[in-house]
Amino acid sequence: MSVETKKVNISVERAKTSKINQVDFDNLKFGSVYTDHMLVCDYKNGVWEAPKIMPYQQIMLDPSAKVFHYGQSIFEGMKAYKDDNGSIFLFRPLDNHKRLNISAKRLSIPELPEEYFMEGLTTLLELDSDFIPTKEGSSLYIRPFMFASGNGFHASPADEYKFIIACAPSGSYFSGKVKVLIEQTYSRSANGGVGFAKAGGNYAGQFYPTQLAIEKGYNQVIWTDDTEHEYIEEAGAMNIFIRINDTLITGPTSDRILDGITRKSILEIAKDNSIPTEVRKITVTEVVNAAKDGSLKEMFGAGTAAVISPISAFGYKDKDYDLPELENSYASKLKKLITDIQYNKSEDKYGWRFMVKS
Amino acid sequence: MSVETKKVNISVERAKTSKINQVDFDNLKFGSVYTDHMLVCDYKNGVWEAPKIMPYQQIMLDPSAKVFHYGQSIFEGMKAYKDDNGSIFLFRPLDNHKRLNISAKRLSIPELPEEYFMEGLTTLLELDSDFIPTKEGSSLYIRPFMFASGNGFHASPADEYKFIIACAPSGSYFSGKVKVLIEQTYSRSANGGVGFAKAGGNYAGQFYPTQLAIEKGYNQVIWTDDTEHEYIEEAGAMNIFIRINDTLITGPTSDRILDGITRKSILEIAKDNSIPTEVRKITVTEVVNAAKDGSLKEMFGAGTAAVISPISAFGYKDKDYDLPELENSYASKLKKLITDIQYNKSEDKYGWRFMVKS
Repeated sequence: MSVETKKVNISVERAKTSKINQVDFDNLKFGSVYTDHMLVCDYKNGVWEAPKIMPYQQIMLDPSAKVFHYGQSIFEGMKAYKDDNGSIFLFRPLDNHKRLNISAKRLSIPELPEEYFMEGLTTLLELDSDFIPTKEGSSLYIRPFMFASGNGFHASPADEYKFIIACAPSGSYFSGKVKVLIEQTYSRSANGGVGFAKAGGNYAGQFYPTQLAIEKGYNQVIWTDDTEHEYIEEAGAMNIFIRINDTLITGPTSDRILDGITRKSILEIAKDNSIPTEVRKITVTEVVNAAKDGSLKEMFGAGTAAVISPISAFGYKDKDYDLPELENSYASKLKKLITDIQYNKSEDKYGWRFMVKS
Repeated sequence: MSVETKKVNISVERAKTSKINQVDFDNLKFGSVYTDHMLVCDYKNGVWEAPKIMPYQQIMLDPSAKVFHYGQSIFEGMKAYKDDNGSIFLFRPLDNHKRLNISAKRLSIPELPEEYFMEGLTTLLELDSDFIPTKEGSSLYIRPFMFASGNGFHASPADEYKFIIACAPSGSYFSGKVKVLIEQTYSRSANGGVGFAKAGGNYAGQFYPTQLAIEKGYNQVIWTDDTEHEYIEEAGAMNIFIRINDTLITGPTSDRILDGITRKSILEIAKDNSIPTEVRKITVTEVVNAAKDGSLKEMFGAGTAAVISPISAFGYKDKDYDLPELENSYASKLKKLITDIQYNKSEDKYGWRFMVKS
């Protein structure tokens, strides 16, 4: 798949020396080392200025920049994939751009033109393509983000913004299977709130409850509705899938739940591979009962960073429920199907793969 | 009132030249010009380092600093007051420090020692005391804030933070009376969320619904619960007071509503001045019915920035309800009582006034 975009005049200032020799590609953590360059786009005087590529460098901001005070910040998560021939691909990048602008609108941040996003991203990736890991389980994690750089202590939208793309050669997000806690006290988002947006504030609010869960031996919280804590929502950095008998179920998206690109891709792939799927509200009671009677076969998280993360057990009201170890799990089957598309190892009948460089 | 604090070794680097001659003290906006100095305190390797005062200057951060991505940012709002003798006062500053740490805990930010806050603040104010406006309605707005300066794209708490205090000689927050819209679609916070914290993300989420309200001719949104939109919560930068007949009512604080220092001070002052008060849930139906039968006498917002902001009218479901113009309103009476304490014009039997410099 490719798209026609208006030609954008992107200025490029190359790094004088490369940091690539400092990267230990055999022992990559998630998102902690960065490539040589970054893309910066400034919003000033009511317009997004043309994107600039420059050496990865520190950002200077006034102490009154509104990002520090009022949380006007949004982001996206993407990955770049390299196949055996060295060709470079993205996965449904236009969906990331669309969602970035959905988040932007809800946070009163000016929307970014598609061609700035797409041309900026592909130009940056071509320049830093040597940083794309080829080792199984590693990838180049791409972080497009936007924040209020305009100044002032008045609680109102800023008049200046920055859009930046930075990239990090990364290992896997979770190491091994994930044990989750079904949250019964804290909440991630409100009806009519910003839960559907990739807004910075949605994440900071999860850290404390997640730390409490980690102290109890879990890796991650599964969020529930803020009224009854009875409906399964999402896992913060992942959407949640639940397999009861042979049916794969995930909750509907809403103004509280992120419309995950991995989530919707998995739903489509599952349907095409004869896996019965349901998109409907899932209650905690239903999951607990299914765990008790043995009909709960699998749970997994799905997101760009974590891809598909199988869940080994869940905790609910001081009791842990183990999930069975399956030989041919939906999680492993679906993970292979989606990553084969992403890494150009299989046909892409969906048109999801986007070639950056052949 | 004064407190004993441990002596802290604060390093001071003075500005070479002062910007004070550039400040137009007769035409101050809210929070848009800053004093000569700022206080910076860094959290590194598990400890808060000693505070440093330095010339007000830009902050340098890595593009991967978590404040840009995960909204780990909190703040406080305070004011410094100068009396006719040039003495300088704060109002209940220890309560701001306490609340800062309450916010910090909920956002997984390390708590700041009281002596760093208090000594840092008073040292900074003494240095920049010439910036404290003396004109009626103006004040020095003080913004203590803390954010995640540590790096990484993993959605987890940062390992480094910055605490900064910056000050802005400011005019009033609202010009004139305020027309509010009782929100029926969007929400500010969830049960079990971070609404009680002064977290950056709580503000960004309000901007879009507030912009929609501004386009309809209102100045501010009054937030309601996220389930039924039937309970009055707060106004984002202010708590809300409602006078029905002679009783002054405000909602109880909760995990959704900020525990405002102006709010609780007003409650206490009102009680001591024979104004009947109630702290209880207020329904929108009750307010609309009171507007219809004439028992709704006043509504006002209360907060550090806005002090007491009388509300002239509220909108609810496409209908506007005007509030009467009162000769001796509770709002004006209470505003005089609280500002007289703040500006050292009356006795302070509560011990709320805190002398910075005599």
